[in-house]
Amino acid sequence: MEFSEIAAGMNAEIRRTVTDADVVLFAGVTGDMNPAHMDAVAAAGTRFGQRVAHGMLCAGYISAVLGMKLPGPGVIYMGQSLRFMRPVFIGDTVTARVEVLSVVTEKRRVQLATRCFNQNGEQVLDGEALVWVPEEAGDGANPVRKRAPVKKAGKAKQNEPVKKAGKAKRS
Amino acid sequence: MEFSEIAAGMNAEIRRTVTDADVVLFAGVTGDMNPAHMDAVAAAGTRFGQRVAHGMLCAGYISAVLGMKLPGPGVIYMGQSLRFMRPVFIGDTVTARVEVLSVVTEKRRVQLATRCFNQNGEQVLDGEALVWVPEEAGDGANPVRKRAPVKKAGKAKQNEPVKKAGKAKRS
Repeated sequence: MEFSEIAAGMNAEIRRTVTDADVVLFAGVTGDMNPAHMDAVAAAGTRFGQRVAHGMLCAGYISAVLGMKLPGPGVIYMGQSLRFMRPVFIGDTVTARVEVLSVVTEKRRVQLATRCFNQNGEQVLDGEALVWVPEEAGDGANPVRKRAPVKKAGKAKQNEPVKKAGKAKRS
Repeated sequence: MEFSEIAAGMNAEIRRTVTDADVVLFAGVTGDMNPAHMDAVAAAGTRFGQRVAHGMLCAGYISAVLGMKLPGPGVIYMGQSLRFMRPVFIGDTVTARVEVLSVVTEKRRVQLATRCFNQNGEQVLDGEALVWVPEEAGDGANPVRKRAPVKKAGKAKQNEPVKKAGKAKRS
């Protein structure tokens, strides 16, 4: 998405069912083998009564929405706050939702509310993200702009920031 | 680790080399297929010039230190702040280090500084974690306490908090 198109209130989400494979693979790539995630017998003795998914797996879903949808490809992750509110169990279906809170035009930064919910609508994660949208996003990392340069000229309003469209008219 | 043993200044770390498999699997479990992570041609056009690892992968290393070492098994993750300072490339070796900042005894909460560094000693991630150490950690989720109740009595100084050792002497 073009930086100039991003405005407060815009939102996007993804939904994923957390499977056992997700938890096992997440443990493998991060090294987090906490028995709360990996050991059903140990987990049965905790207040949750069963294995729980890694909190950072849900944080990964937020990263996915930011990197894939809003702002989308090319975005640079600057920061994230996370508050883990409820456990996520294997079999739960998690919706990760981001919503633009503010846009700092001079710095090309976007602040977003980031939340995850389970299939019962209960919020499992809360937080905020700060991202930076580089100008190069349109030149290299954003395949939409890269693939169709001709289209851009013809559909200036859809793909080009307002500023650039204005300059084109003056020349 | 016993909650009563945790004190400000204590620290722990893990080290991992970020491989291509880590990045590909992390993309798979989270759904974050941002071309910055997955597409070498697109990534060559960005300021980093090559594919970068997901920031949340490093955050996962922090989760690993917390869940495996300090405070260790049984810990409940309450919150985390993350500031992504530098890109992590495939082939980089990342050290994730946590250090206890403060302990809130009444609430069994621990606040920790959480930092990641690359092989050149450059900090790539900064933040703070808040965790909760349940009493049940020793009953179910912490295999060290569960497996060896006899050992505990014999090696009070190694495995038992000072307070409990003191009580034992008085009785």
